Amino acid sequence: MEFETKIGYSKPDAIFIHGYNLTEELIGNITLADMAFLGATHRRPTLEESKMLNACMVAICEHGFTPSSISARLTYLGAPEAVQAAVAAGLLGAGSVYLGAMENTAQMLQDGWKSYGHYEEVASVATKIIDEWQLKKLQVMGLGHPLHKPVDPRTIKLFSLAEELGFSGKHTALMKEIHHGISEQKGKQMTLNVAGAIGAILSDMKLHYSVVKAFAVAARAVGLIAHIVEEAESGRKESMAQKLYDHIEENTRYTNNLGDFELKNQL
Amino acid sequence: MEFETKIGYSKPDAIFIHGYNLTEELIGNITLADMAFLGATHRRPTLEESKMLNACMVAICEHGFTPSSISARLTYLGAPEAVQAAVAAGLLGAGSVYLGAMENTAQMLQDGWKSYGHYEEVASVATKIIDEWQLKKLQVMGLGHPLHKPVDPRTIKLFSLAEELGFSGKHTALMKEIHHGISEQKGKQMTLNVAGAIGAILSDMKLHYSVVKAFAVAARAVGLIAHIVEEAESGRKESMAQKLYDHIEENTRYTNNLGDFELKNQL
Amino acid sequence: MEFETKIGYSKPDAIFIHGYNLTEELIGNITLADMAFLGATHRRPTLEESKMLNACMVAICEHGFTPSSISARLTYLGAPEAVQAAVAAGLLGAGSVYLGAMENTAQMLQDGWKSYGHYEEVASVATKIIDEWQLKKLQVMGLGHPLHKPVDPRTIKLFSLAEELGFSGKHTALMKEIHHGISEQKGKQMTLNVAGAIGAILSDMKLHYSVVKAFAVAARAVGLIAHIVEEAESGRKESMAQKLYDHIEENTRYTNNLGDFELKNQL
Amino acid sequence: MEFETKIGYSKPDAIFIHGYNLTEELIGNITLADMAFLGATHRRPTLEESKMLNACMVAICEHGFTPSSISARLTYLGAPEAVQAAVAAGLLGAGSVYLGAMENTAQMLQDGWKSYGHYEEVASVATKIIDEWQLKKLQVMGLGHPLHKPVDPRTIKLFSLAEELGFSGKHTALMKEIHHGISEQKGKQMTLNVAGAIGAILSDMKLHYSVVKAFAVAARAVGLIAHIVEEAESGRKESMAQKLYDHIEENTRYTNNLGDFELKNQL
Repeated sequence: MEFETKIGYSKPDAIFIHGYNLTEELIGNITLADMAFLGATHRRPTLEESKMLNACMVAICEHGFTPSSISARLTYLGAPEAVQAAVAAGLLGAGSVYLGAMENTAQMLQDGWKSYGHYEEVASVATKIIDEWQLKKLQVMGLGHPLHKPVDPRTIKLFSLAEELGFSGKHTALMKEIHHGISEQKGKQMTLNVAGAIGAILSDMKLHYSVVKAFAVAARAVGLIAHIVEEAESGRKESMAQKLYDHIEENTRYTNNLGDFELKNQL
Repeated sequence: MEFETKIGYSKPDAIFIHGYNLTEELIGNITLADMAFLGATHRRPTLEESKMLNACMVAICEHGFTPSSISARLTYLGAPEAVQAAVAAGLLGAGSVYLGAMENTAQMLQDGWKSYGHYEEVASVATKIIDEWQLKKLQVMGLGHPLHKPVDPRTIKLFSLAEELGFSGKHTALMKEIHHGISEQKGKQMTLNVAGAIGAILSDMKLHYSVVKAFAVAARAVGLIAHIVEEAESGRKESMAQKLYDHIEENTRYTNNLGDFELKNQL
Repeated sequence: MEFETKIGYSKPDAIFIHGYNLTEELIGNITLADMAFLGATHRRPTLEESKMLNACMVAICEHGFTPSSISARLTYLGAPEAVQAAVAAGLLGAGSVYLGAMENTAQMLQDGWKSYGHYEEVASVATKIIDEWQLKKLQVMGLGHPLHKPVDPRTIKLFSLAEELGFSGKHTALMKEIHHGISEQKGKQMTLNVAGAIGAILSDMKLHYSVVKAFAVAARAVGLIAHIVEEAESGRKESMAQKLYDHIEENTRYTNNLGDFELKNQL
Repeated sequence: MEFETKIGYSKPDAIFIHGYNLTEELIGNITLADMAFLGATHRRPTLEESKMLNACMVAICEHGFTPSSISARLTYLGAPEAVQAAVAAGLLGAGSVYLGAMENTAQMLQDGWKSYGHYEEVASVATKIIDEWQLKKLQVMGLGHPLHKPVDPRTIKLFSLAEELGFSGKHTALMKEIHHGISEQKGKQMTLNVAGAIGAILSDMKLHYSVVKAFAVAARAVGLIAHIVEEAESGRKESMAQKLYDHIEENTRYTNNLGDFELKNQL
């Protein structure tokens, strides 16, 4: 049996990745995020693409205490010898509910242009998408934020960079129109959130929506380092995960149909 | 119950990470790898640190078909809708046998200077470490490679960059001395491999050995993107994982103590 | 903040799980699979339910060399000190493509009765489901097997047990009718596979389709023990995972658009 | 390339696992836990072994809100479509700190008899082990519990079953002696905990300590079903994971060296 790959190969004195000599062309010349781009597109990014992609990945790297980082910390508490397991546990919750929003936005915008592009006017395409999603009783993607209201500061920054670097194209325009349309409809300024901004920009970088989640997952892996380091520096007894575990143990009420127990849940 | 973190906090119009304003100071100014550095050290890297760290992470991002990337591909075959699970599965094998070598090298060098630094001469410290490891019947870390003989091209490149950027310090010197000592002992030029080089350089960047594996794991998460994309682009039937599965199914021999079966292992 | 659970609680001298005294009523009286049932339904299974569930879980525990068990073995190769990571990696591929079939069959049958139950005759309900799925250009669930043709021996056994134990109800009847309908349509005997059988039987045990995959995943966790033990007993050099890795490394061809490389893929 | 396995093989009309005909000898005749035993020992358990193993696995299946079940719930919150990821995340924390205790106890007892068995008297072997561990400044395994004091009710039950079923052998005796020795030394009755009891009993069932953790991990996979079902039944808004996430978000204080921030940690 023979296997094939376009990714790379090695000789004793040289390594090639997607056709580039690793030591002569990549190490020292490109950033870690560029390797993500290379893996997804089979070519090195331009300087503008590199800067834009690093900006997007930096923007979503760190999210504070989320289900993802808390799982990583709890896993580290139980298996400090297996840091890879803590990172993996932190990534596993990157499903449809959280990290999915970037991919879903990119898909909405890319499919939208494909389905309704013949309407030509971006405002008409936006209207068609809004109608389609509302007909399906779905909320359009990329809007709303519990804290960053009425504006997500990351969106401002990323859109400004995209303008400067040449990635403010038809998907970004469409996202802004959708934002405008929904805000009008609701009679208030909705937040165009960071997932909406990145979904649009990566689309204007010509990345297919199906790779968007992989970029988000890789950025999260980098972001989880801070959480594991903070657990390690706290020491186990003072760690967030240990405190959380203790707190839950002391504050859990047993309920059943009879409803008359109130005892510690420490099995 | 109150939880604490040094990592960051948000206001409606601003986000702070390790004291930096995310949109004013980080996005657009730093690379993804710098976020790893920031998470581990609580400060932004200098330009030299950023360049060195990106170089190290780029160097270990992609390793071709390894147990790690094959697991990721097999997991993607079964659960293409959950890219995060494929990445997680690819990271989970980053245990003591593979990705552990960088951390172990860094620990060997950092502990070595701590234990034997009073001998002052780097050659004496190297001898003491070699003696200690051989007394424990262990092989010293960072040496040997099945293909890259007698030289690992990544080591040459990374050591050259470290020299240029100011990270060729006492740990790198010690690693080179250990390499020299073992090569003399064996009467042949051993390979100072990429794990040895990175373990030494990250130590000279003053990173504690305990964070080294987290950096390696994050770099792998980026590297796995190429493998997932290749699976997706092949289509399921032509994917490496499907071919591999078919191949194994057709080439498995059942053996037991009686030893007289030879049948397909397709349960 | 207070958390609530119906699962259980502890006192210094007694532990209660779903209302049962763990040491007085469960340990020594019920099987491991019964704990799965208890977790899903909040009550102990009857003897018949216990026997049926154990039979179903035993039937799907072990599948030979599959993407799932191969990932577990490759992960163990890299991280033998973290058995939990090997099991987790083996479970992560249990997505839509493989282990999903049982859940999907159960959903097809449960939703089918809900949507078309007013047709009363099981044959009519089956026809409606077949029409619905074929209109959506989907293959109905639970049919077909590459090796077990025209009959899956596990299906025979499980349906026979279900009959004996009182779980051959309307979902099993519906699955058989669908099988009959599709076989007639194709003009050949299709295999009613083990996923189809279990999806039907668990539905007749009144388990909601949404818990079916969790049962399958737990059974796989038990099945993976055999694979990890076989790797451990072989020793690393002779292990299946190491041989597989070596084999892939020696048989990978680098291809790119230029198509003129043929070199080892050992980065 | 040819692969080998002792686990099993299939023919169109029959499946063999470890030499047993799956449909004729296993399904309907053995329990799920017996498959774990079969995988680890390559033979079906006796009735006594089956009963003992089921008892041990039932005893450790459910532990209430622990880092493991909380991680599973948080992962389910983010990726409800990927139940396998929630189970995997729940298993990943089964490292050295928690589920490791059973394996470590088994190893302590098995190695203990190997090293000191020539002293013949179980009391002498116990003394030697206590001395050895205390010389290394380690706490002996299997003792102590924060809630179940001075007696763990599971230990009483499991030791009583082991006596009845013929598995109260030299390792159980040794564990009891160690318990006795440490209690005397400390001048108070220590708890011989469930991990100590199971480590001893599985050793007396002649299971090698290296498979003990895999049994514990598989039992946890079964136990996690209850937690995932409880999350699903609560609905996302009322789920424990969502409440926990909200609670943490509202109760996190940002701290740094300057120590003067107190803001929401919602990035």
